[in-house]
Amino acid sequence: MKVGILGGGQLGRMLLQASANYVVETSVLDKESDCPAAHLCHHFVQGDITDFDTVYRFGKGLDAITIEIESVNVDALEKLEAEGVPVYPRPSAIRTIKNKITQKAFYRQHDIPTSEFIITEARKELQEHLSFLPAVHKTGEGGYDGKGVQVLKELKDIDLGFDVPAVLEKMVPIHKEIAVIVAMSNQGEVTLYPPAEMIFDPVLNLLDYQLSPAILPEQVLWKAEAIALKVVKHLNSPGLFAIELFVDKNQEVLVNETAPRVHNSGHHTIEANYSSQYDMLWRIILNYPLGNTDPILPSAIVNLLGAEGYTGKAKYENLEDVLKTDNVFVHLYGKTETKPGRKMGHVTIISKDYQDLAYQANKIKHLLKVIA
Amino acid sequence: MKVGILGGGQLGRMLLQASANYVVETSVLDKESDCPAAHLCHHFVQGDITDFDTVYRFGKGLDAITIEIESVNVDALEKLEAEGVPVYPRPSAIRTIKNKITQKAFYRQHDIPTSEFIITEARKELQEHLSFLPAVHKTGEGGYDGKGVQVLKELKDIDLGFDVPAVLEKMVPIHKEIAVIVAMSNQGEVTLYPPAEMIFDPVLNLLDYQLSPAILPEQVLWKAEAIALKVVKHLNSPGLFAIELFVDKNQEVLVNETAPRVHNSGHHTIEANYSSQYDMLWRIILNYPLGNTDPILPSAIVNLLGAEGYTGKAKYENLEDVLKTDNVFVHLYGKTETKPGRKMGHVTIISKDYQDLAYQANKIKHLLKVIA
Repeated sequence: MKVGILGGGQLGRMLLQASANYVVETSVLDKESDCPAAHLCHHFVQGDITDFDTVYRFGKGLDAITIEIESVNVDALEKLEAEGVPVYPRPSAIRTIKNKITQKAFYRQHDIPTSEFIITEARKELQEHLSFLPAVHKTGEGGYDGKGVQVLKELKDIDLGFDVPAVLEKMVPIHKEIAVIVAMSNQGEVTLYPPAEMIFDPVLNLLDYQLSPAILPEQVLWKAEAIALKVVKHLNSPGLFAIELFVDKNQEVLVNETAPRVHNSGHHTIEANYSSQYDMLWRIILNYPLGNTDPILPSAIVNLLGAEGYTGKAKYENLEDVLKTDNVFVHLYGKTETKPGRKMGHVTIISKDYQDLAYQANKIKHLLKVIA
Repeated sequence: MKVGILGGGQLGRMLLQASANYVVETSVLDKESDCPAAHLCHHFVQGDITDFDTVYRFGKGLDAITIEIESVNVDALEKLEAEGVPVYPRPSAIRTIKNKITQKAFYRQHDIPTSEFIITEARKELQEHLSFLPAVHKTGEGGYDGKGVQVLKELKDIDLGFDVPAVLEKMVPIHKEIAVIVAMSNQGEVTLYPPAEMIFDPVLNLLDYQLSPAILPEQVLWKAEAIALKVVKHLNSPGLFAIELFVDKNQEVLVNETAPRVHNSGHHTIEANYSSQYDMLWRIILNYPLGNTDPILPSAIVNLLGAEGYTGKAKYENLEDVLKTDNVFVHLYGKTETKPGRKMGHVTIISKDYQDLAYQANKIKHLLKVIA
C-alpha cells in the first residue's frame, strides 16, 4: 500500500518510525529537504503542502493520504478524495478544523460545549466587545504553536488584537486543561485514549509538561469522553483526532480546540500505551483492527523547546544526565537549527508513581536545554 | 554524527527506527535496493558487504560504522579502524566470532565454559571421531539461520557432515537455551539484559518462541551473567553482543555462540525494556550513557517465518486476529517475497503473567502464517 504524508515535521517522523512495523510504501511532501521526516520514507518529494498542484500531483496515484499538519491545500485533497484516494481525515473535517472560525461554528452548530465567542473581521470591531473581555483572540487561519493567539484582558490590550478574520473567545476560568485522543476506523468504530492533563507555559503558550492518565473525578472523565466522541462523530471521518478540553472551576467540560491528526499531547503513547497514536493511525489507514489504548504505565511528557536567547546550530545541554535516568525516553527531532520556542524534541517518563513522574518532569525541565 | 550500517535486513530496520530518537545521519550498505532498511536511512548505498573496496569506500568519511550481520569484509573494517573510523564492535571481535572455529578456540583460550569440540578440515576426518558423537557439525564460515549446521548422531549421519573447515561440537544434554545481551561502552562500562529463554524448532533450527526474563535458579543466573560478561571482556570491544548459552541437565552453563551485534533474541526489548537493544547500540555509538536494561513487563517473542510450501509475494494469514489481541505488538519486516523459513516478522507479547505470555505465544504461532 502506498501512503503519502503531507508535512515532514516531528509528527511525520514518529509516524514513519511506527510505519516500519507494517508493510507500507511511504511518501512525504515537505518544502524542506532536511525536515525531520525526509530520510525515513521511501519517497521524499520537496514541495509546498499549501499549493494545489503540488498536493494534487503528490497524492494522485497513492492508495491513501494523511496529514501531520492542518495547514494544507484542502481543495487538492477534496479533488483527490473525489477521484477515489482516501484521505485521513476527510478533507471536510480538515476544512472545518483548520479555520478557527469555522471550527467554533461547528461546535455551536452541534451543541458541543465550548466557550462563548464572537467572530471579528477586523481589529476595530474589538471596541464593540469590551464587556466580553477578558477573552482570547485567535486568527481564523495560520495560527500555530502559540502564533495567532492573543489574550485580551482589558481595553488597553485591544491594539494587540488581530486585524484579520478572527474569533474572540471568552476566557474560561480554567481548572485543568486536558486532551483526549480519539481514533475512528473506516467502519466507524471508535476508541479513546485516556485523557492527558497539562499545564501551559503562560509566555510561549506551549505545553509545559503533561501527565497521563489525567487525574479526574469520574463525572468529569465521562463528560470529557462524551464530548470528545461527539466532536469526532460530527466530523464524520475516519482518522485520529486530538480534542483539547478545558475543565472549568465548576467541573464543566468545554472544547478548546481539535487537531485532525496525531498530536503533541499523544507523544507518550509511544512508550506508555499498548498501541501508540502513530501505530493507531497506521491501523486505520491499513484497515487493520483498532489498537489497544490502555496505558502500560502512567507517564509524563516534557517538551524540549529551543531556549530563549539562542538561535543557530542546536546543542543539547545536560542531555547525558537525562539519558542516565532509569525511566526516561528521549526523542530528539533532528532539527539542525534551534530558535526560541521551537519544538526540538520531547522526553517521556513512565512510572507507576505519579509523584515520581512529577519529580522527574520538573528535574528534566530544569536540566535539559536546547542552546546554540 | 555520520554512522554507517553494514547490512540492511530487519535488524538494520529496527536499528534505524530507534535512530530517529536521536540526531544521527545514517547510511546503509546492502546489495538489495529494496531491503528492509533501505528507505529508513539518509543515504542508501547498493553494494556487497563482503567486498573489500565496497566496504572501505562506504566507511571512509563516516564517523562510526556498525554491522547488523557478521558476514562482512573484516579486512576493510580493520583498515577503516586503523585510519580512525570507530567500528562497533571492533573488527578483531567480529573476526573472532564470524568463524565458528576461531570462536570456539577463543572460548577455550580464555577458559570460557563451552561444549567440547574437534576441528575438522574435511568430511573424511569425521570417521576418526565416531566415539565423539552425538555432536553438531558447524561450518567455520557462512553458517546462518540454521544453514551450515548439521546434527550427527551416529555413523550413518557422517555423510551429512561438511567437507569444508568446520567444528564438531559435542552434543550437550540441554535443559534450557538462554541468551544474554551485553552492552559495552567506549569507556568499558558494561550492562546486561535479563536472560531470555527459548525453545528451538528441531527442523528449522530457528527460534520457536522466547520468554524473557528467563525463569532460572539464582545460581544459574549468576553463572550465565558471569560467563556472558567474561565473553565480552575478552572480546575487548565496545558494542552490543548476544551470548547464547546452554543450561545443561546438571545446571552447568556453557556458551553456545556469540553474536557481535543486535540479535533476534533481543527484539522484545523494543517494547518490554526501558532501553531496547537498538537504543542501547545508538547510545554506545553516540557516546551517551548506557541505558536501563530493566524489563517494564515480562515478554514473549514469536518469530514469523515463511510457511513451508509457500514461495512468492508474502501474505499474512490471520494478521487481523493477532492485531486484535490487547497486549501484542506486530513487527513486519517489509520483505516482499516469502520462502519457507525466511524471517518475515515477529510478534512481541507483554504481560505480567507468564501463563498469559505462553498462551498468547502458542495462539499466535498457530494462527499467524506467512503464505504466498
